[in-house]
Amino acid sequence: MKKQATFYHAGCPVCVAAEQQVAEAIDSARFNVEIVHLGESKSRIGEAESVGVTSVPALVIGGRPFHINFGAAIADLK
Amino acid sequence: MKKQATFYHAGCPVCVAAEQQVAEAIDSARFNVEIVHLGESKSRIGEAESVGVTSVPALVIGGRPFHINFGAAIADLK
Repeated sequence: MKKQATFYHAGCPVCVAAEQQVAEAIDSARFNVEIVHLGESKSRIGEAESVGVTSVPALVIGGRPFHINFGAAIADLK
Repeated sequence: MKKQATFYHAGCPVCVAAEQQVAEAIDSARFNVEIVHLGESKSRIGEAESVGVTSVPALVIGGRPFHINFGAAIADLK
């Protein structure tokens, strides 16, 4: 069964670079990779915050948040 | 031909979590993943700095640095 990997972003240049390099590198044979644009899907901000995401871009794997460089704070997306 | 992905760390708890979740998730069919402990391999600090790594854990893909959360500053490893 595949594990879940969720990549949260907001369309910023830092986010795009992380998506193209890091999220794209994840093994799709082992992970379901979901890309979520929090600027467009504001209803999912709470879900991201609940696992500890404080800024984007961020990758959540195994329920843990991994912030990748810094594009924007979650608070600024609300 | 496989692309290179280099994961720099220093053995810190934040580094270990990132290695086990993010570095481990990279598709080994498409990437050569190298794990470098900069505390033990201080001779490679210069190489990491040259591509823009300023803290660990960090993943370098396509020659670009992606800092993952924050474990330690490169300056503190020297």
